[in-house]
Amino acid sequence: MPLVVVGSVAIDHVETPTERRNNLLGGSATHFSVSASFFTDVRLVGVVGSDWPEEHTAMLQSKGVDTSGLQVVEGGKTFTWTGRYLPNMNDRETLDVQLNVFGEFDPVLPEDYKRAKYVFLANGVPAVQMKVLSQVPGRRLAVADTMDLWISTQRDDLDQLLGELDGLVLNDSEAKLLTGNENLVEAGRAVQDMGPKFVVIKKGEHGAMFFGEHETYVLPAYPTENVVDPTGAGDSFAGGMMGYLAEKDNFDADTLKTAMAYGILVASFNVEGFGLEHMHNITRDDIEERMEEYRRMLSF
Amino acid sequence: MPLVVVGSVAIDHVETPTERRNNLLGGSATHFSVSASFFTDVRLVGVVGSDWPEEHTAMLQSKGVDTSGLQVVEGGKTFTWTGRYLPNMNDRETLDVQLNVFGEFDPVLPEDYKRAKYVFLANGVPAVQMKVLSQVPGRRLAVADTMDLWISTQRDDLDQLLGELDGLVLNDSEAKLLTGNENLVEAGRAVQDMGPKFVVIKKGEHGAMFFGEHETYVLPAYPTENVVDPTGAGDSFAGGMMGYLAEKDNFDADTLKTAMAYGILVASFNVEGFGLEHMHNITRDDIEERMEEYRRMLSF
Repeated sequence: MPLVVVGSVAIDHVETPTERRNNLLGGSATHFSVSASFFTDVRLVGVVGSDWPEEHTAMLQSKGVDTSGLQVVEGGKTFTWTGRYLPNMNDRETLDVQLNVFGEFDPVLPEDYKRAKYVFLANGVPAVQMKVLSQVPGRRLAVADTMDLWISTQRDDLDQLLGELDGLVLNDSEAKLLTGNENLVEAGRAVQDMGPKFVVIKKGEHGAMFFGEHETYVLPAYPTENVVDPTGAGDSFAGGMMGYLAEKDNFDADTLKTAMAYGILVASFNVEGFGLEHMHNITRDDIEERMEEYRRMLSF
Repeated sequence: MPLVVVGSVAIDHVETPTERRNNLLGGSATHFSVSASFFTDVRLVGVVGSDWPEEHTAMLQSKGVDTSGLQVVEGGKTFTWTGRYLPNMNDRETLDVQLNVFGEFDPVLPEDYKRAKYVFLANGVPAVQMKVLSQVPGRRLAVADTMDLWISTQRDDLDQLLGELDGLVLNDSEAKLLTGNENLVEAGRAVQDMGPKFVVIKKGEHGAMFFGEHETYVLPAYPTENVVDPTGAGDSFAGGMMGYLAEKDNFDADTLKTAMAYGILVASFNVEGFGLEHMHNITRDDIEERMEEYRRMLSF
């Protein structure tokens, strides 16, 4: 089934302890789209400026991503993010953010996108995420990401959004902030009480936790030692997870758990290259091979 | 097979955000012994003062722990530790440490202990750990724990010990300190290069990683929301792991992975009560029931 994603499309400048790379294809919707493209047809909604390099669009299209929902604002500039990773490759400093055209993003879905059954709202202003939902009234599964900024400044809008969602994906520090609870198991259940039928807490290099109607579980990250650039790992996780759900056109408990495992594995490939460079080169077979290894790792 | 453990036996005073409890049965060898007692015969080596409450020895004996190696120094005082957990229940402050008789601990193994095949050296001065090893020349499997203090101040002795060990268990920050590497996968392999045939990195609420001759894997912690007192979780983990290996009298790759899973589960029970209170009340059946749930959690 087609999967619609709405979120940021950006140009990233990334510095790690060993290397600096400029003008990488970045953004939450971009990492999500490429990750989901291994599983299903992806329809991207985003906005860029006239500085947007055409080869980035071509790269997305080469992965089968439908970019007809990518607005180009003539004379505008694309969202840019500049960041530096600390030696542990988990903590990072944002050196510069230029929202540019993304600051005025008013997503309008093409007609054929509006019939989508699977929708992912990548991190964005909650009120804008709500406006997207209202454009896909026939959706079967709507999942969103959020971030500390909206939890702190847009809480009313976020609460309203939570009431409309089937699932919420957020990271561990955000779950603690949203609930005021430092115990992740309690925090996950508390987020679920705010509305979403299921909640996924991303723990970075420590994997992810799932909170559903009848079960709570945790799966570890795939232990890659080749961490080149963690940017977009969380969006890749969500892309792998949602892509698999849309492929199966099912979100029962078993499918959700397998989907979470795919999300974890796709994220492990994402961090093995700068931006989307490594993702561009892998295939579904590479993912399936790692999945076999991951299942073996968890069997005893 | 009998399992010998040498380490600290202590009286703990513990403060959490909601409660303060004094005079708890504590110490690395104690948490280890009780945890291992669900699987095999445990022979404890430690030292206490004449203030040691007899009921603590009785509790250990009720779990089948052989306490004939527990020296009592007349007129001496038992090691005490006082600590406070921060609201996240992971970070803690040590408020007071009184080494007392443990500061002069010179472990002498009873004759029947010296024929042990399975030995665990709980956290202690590396030179003292070495002296224990020399008393069990016919051992089949020797595993040790260590800590930041010895890594920083007793590095030569520790390096010598690493060359004698079959396995080393340490936590994530200690692995980074020991190797100077912030990537845990690389750090684990680097520790292995220092001598031990296998290395286990404990990640607290995030589970544990294993580095063996032919494989690297990670297993998540069991997601308990009932974290009452994390003291001794790492020692309980080691106790469950070593106890299972001694029970099976085997440490091939499959047995090691199952043993690590038991360690994770026993640690999850340990944190559900102050000191060893909850451990005192559970049975092997409780562990097996949680193991079934854990295996289900990791299956998809």
